[in-house]
Amino acid sequence: MTELPQDSVGLVTPETAHFDDPLPLACGRTLPAYDLVYETYGTLNAERTNAILICHALSGHHHAAGYHSLDERKPGWWDAHIGPGKSIDTDRFFVVSVNNLGGCHGSTGPNTPNPETGEPWGPDFPMMTVLDWVHSQARLADRLGIERFAAVVGGSLGGMQVLQWTLSYPERIAHAAVIAATPKLSAQNIAFNEVARQAIRSDPDFHDGHYAEHGTLPRRGLKLARMVGHITYLSEDAMGSKFGRDLRSEDFNFGYDVEFQVESYLRYQGDTFSTSFDANTYLLMTKALDYFDPAAARGGDLAAALAPASCPFLVVSFSSDWRFPPSRSKELANALIRAGKPVSYVNIDSPHGHDAFLLPEPRYQAVFAAFMARVAHDQGLEDRR
Amino acid sequence: MTELPQDSVGLVTPETAHFDDPLPLACGRTLPAYDLVYETYGTLNAERTNAILICHALSGHHHAAGYHSLDERKPGWWDAHIGPGKSIDTDRFFVVSVNNLGGCHGSTGPNTPNPETGEPWGPDFPMMTVLDWVHSQARLADRLGIERFAAVVGGSLGGMQVLQWTLSYPERIAHAAVIAATPKLSAQNIAFNEVARQAIRSDPDFHDGHYAEHGTLPRRGLKLARMVGHITYLSEDAMGSKFGRDLRSEDFNFGYDVEFQVESYLRYQGDTFSTSFDANTYLLMTKALDYFDPAAARGGDLAAALAPASCPFLVVSFSSDWRFPPSRSKELANALIRAGKPVSYVNIDSPHGHDAFLLPEPRYQAVFAAFMARVAHDQGLEDRR
Repeated sequence: MTELPQDSVGLVTPETAHFDDPLPLACGRTLPAYDLVYETYGTLNAERTNAILICHALSGHHHAAGYHSLDERKPGWWDAHIGPGKSIDTDRFFVVSVNNLGGCHGSTGPNTPNPETGEPWGPDFPMMTVLDWVHSQARLADRLGIERFAAVVGGSLGGMQVLQWTLSYPERIAHAAVIAATPKLSAQNIAFNEVARQAIRSDPDFHDGHYAEHGTLPRRGLKLARMVGHITYLSEDAMGSKFGRDLRSEDFNFGYDVEFQVESYLRYQGDTFSTSFDANTYLLMTKALDYFDPAAARGGDLAAALAPASCPFLVVSFSSDWRFPPSRSKELANALIRAGKPVSYVNIDSPHGHDAFLLPEPRYQAVFAAFMARVAHDQGLEDRR
Repeated sequence: MTELPQDSVGLVTPETAHFDDPLPLACGRTLPAYDLVYETYGTLNAERTNAILICHALSGHHHAAGYHSLDERKPGWWDAHIGPGKSIDTDRFFVVSVNNLGGCHGSTGPNTPNPETGEPWGPDFPMMTVLDWVHSQARLADRLGIERFAAVVGGSLGGMQVLQWTLSYPERIAHAAVIAATPKLSAQNIAFNEVARQAIRSDPDFHDGHYAEHGTLPRRGLKLARMVGHITYLSEDAMGSKFGRDLRSEDFNFGYDVEFQVESYLRYQGDTFSTSFDANTYLLMTKALDYFDPAAARGGDLAAALAPASCPFLVVSFSSDWRFPPSRSKELANALIRAGKPVSYVNIDSPHGHDAFLLPEPRYQAVFAAFMARVAHDQGLEDRR
C-alpha cells in the first residue's frame, strides 16, 4: 500500500501502560503488576468529555482501527466503524482500544513473564473475568485522565464488558452500546466452548499449558477450536451462499483430502489461527465468557441486577446470529425496560451471522452512527469536521 | 432384568449373511466378498409381503429392538418404535435391521479382516456411499427371499438410504418413511463433519488409520467428534432445559475441571463413545453423509431426480431439529409434490432436536403408527393381534 484510505485513522502505534498497584481478581488471586497495551485514535478534548472505550471479543485485541504499517494487509478489526466520518467518528471522539489482561497481543497474559519467576506465566496466569477486565480498563482510564467515558462500546464478549461497565462504574460511563452480546451464555454456548477447550487441552503438545517450556505449540487443538468457532460465527445461510456444496476439484476424490470448498476454508482459518494465537489465552477467554452472568448474584433476576445502571443503552442484534441470537439481546432490552432504564433496541436484518457485528452493513452503520451522534450531542461536542 | 417388557420383541440374536459375489462401489473399487450382520423381528408371512427394512444412522447398527441378553441395560436403538403393538408392529410385520458395510458392529468394515492380507482393513477399507449400502441391502433381501419390502424406514442418514431405495429399486419398495433427513447436506453440515474428521485424523494416536497395528486408539479425536456431534443432535432449548447453567459443584472452581453440568455430560458421552466406536468407521460414515446428493446428477433438480420413485412417502421432521431442520424435509416433500409423487409430510412439534427421531413423542408415534397401518392395509395384511 502506498497511500492509506481517506477515511482511515491512518498509521497507529500501540502504547503500553504499566501498573504497579496490585489488581485483586474475581478468582481470589491478585495480579501483582501488569501492562496494558492500547491504541488511541483522535484527540482527547480539553474537557475530556469525548472519550470512547472499545472492548474486544474472544480473539480480538487493541488494534481496532488503522494500520501499523503501510505493509499491513488489513486494517484493525473494527476499522469499518472507527475513523474520520465513520460511526465512531475520530474527528469528534477520542477512541481508546485496549488489549485485555490475559490476552496475547502485548498486555500481561499467559505469554508474558511472571515477575516472580521471570518465565512466561503460561497456565499459571490467573483466570480472568469480565469484571476484572472492567476494573483494569477503569485504571487505564485513570491513567489517561478520563473520568467518564462518553460511551463504552463492544460486540460479543466486548458487549459483555460494556454491560459490566454500566453496573460497576455507572458514574463513569455516559452511554453504552452492547452489540451482538448476551447477558449470559446458554448451555449450548458453554458446550461449544467446552469442545474448544477439550480440543486444546487434549492435544499432546499442550503439556498442561506448559508448551513454551517444551518448545511445542498445541496447533492441532487450536485449529480445531477455531474451526468449531468459525461455524458458530457464520450463519447456516451465509455458509451456504458462500460455499454451498461446491467442490474443490471437479469430482469426489473419495478420500480425506479436501473435497468441498467449505472444508478448505475451515482448514485454512484453523491453520492460520493455530500459529498466531496463544492457546492459554484462548482457554481463559472462553472461561470468561462462560462465567459472565451478572444476574446470578440476584437469583437470576436480570432487571434487578441492572439497577445500578444509569446511562442510555443501545442494544443491537443480527437476525441470523445463532451464537448470540436476537432473543438474547431482547432478553437484555426487556430487562432494561423492566428496570426502567433508557434503551434503544435494534435487530439488524443480516445474513452474516454473529460476524455481522464486524461488518459494514448499511442499516447497522446508520443505527450505530445515529447513536454516536446522540452521544456527541449529549456530551455537547461540536462537529469539528 | 428378570423379565422383559411386554411390548418388547424380547431376546434377539444377530445373524450373519456372507456374500461371495463382488460388490462394485461408487468410489470405483470393488468389495470382493463381505458379511452383513442383521437382526430380524417378527415372522415373514407366506406371501412375503410383510417385510420392513430398517436403515440406521451415523453411529447406529443392526440392533434396533429387543435385548441381546437379560443383562443388557438398554434395548435396541429404535425399541420405542419396533415391537408388538408399537408403530412398527412385529405382530404384523417382519422387520430386518442390518449393520451397514463399513460399520463396526460385525458387518465387513475397517475393523474386519481384509481377505487379501488377513489383517483388518483399517483405512484401506473402500469409501462407502448411500448407494453402495442400498445395493448391499438389496442383496440381503434376495438372500432372505424378500422381493419387495412393504416399507423401508429410517431416520437421519437412515432416511437418506430410504430415499435412495425409492430411486434405485422402485419396484422393490412399496412404501418409504424418510424421517429427520435431508436430500443433501448443507455447507454447515459438511463443516461440522469436517471438524469431526480433523479431530480424529489429527490425533497422534490415529496413525493415518493404522491405529490397530500401533496398538493405539484415537480416543481424543473420537471424543471430540462425538462431543461436537452431540451438540448438533440436541436443540439449544433441550440443552438449556436439561442443563441450563447448572454448576457441578456449588461455586466456580476457576479452573479447567468440570464446572457446568453440560460439560460433564459432553465429556461423559465423548469418553464412552471413544472406546466403543471405530474411528475409521466414523470417518467413512461422515463422508457418506457428505456425498449424498441424488439431485446432483440432474443438475440439482431434485424433482427430476425423484422421477424413478413410485411408492407413497411419509416425510417427517421435528420442529427443533437444527441438524436437518424442517426446511430440508419440506424441500424433499415439495420436490416429491412437483414430481407428482404421493407424499404425506408432517412436522412434529418437539423440543428434542435431531434426537427426537429416536424418542417416543406421542404425536410422532401416532403419525408413524397411522402410516404403518396404511402399509399393512395396502399390503393386505390381516391384523393378527
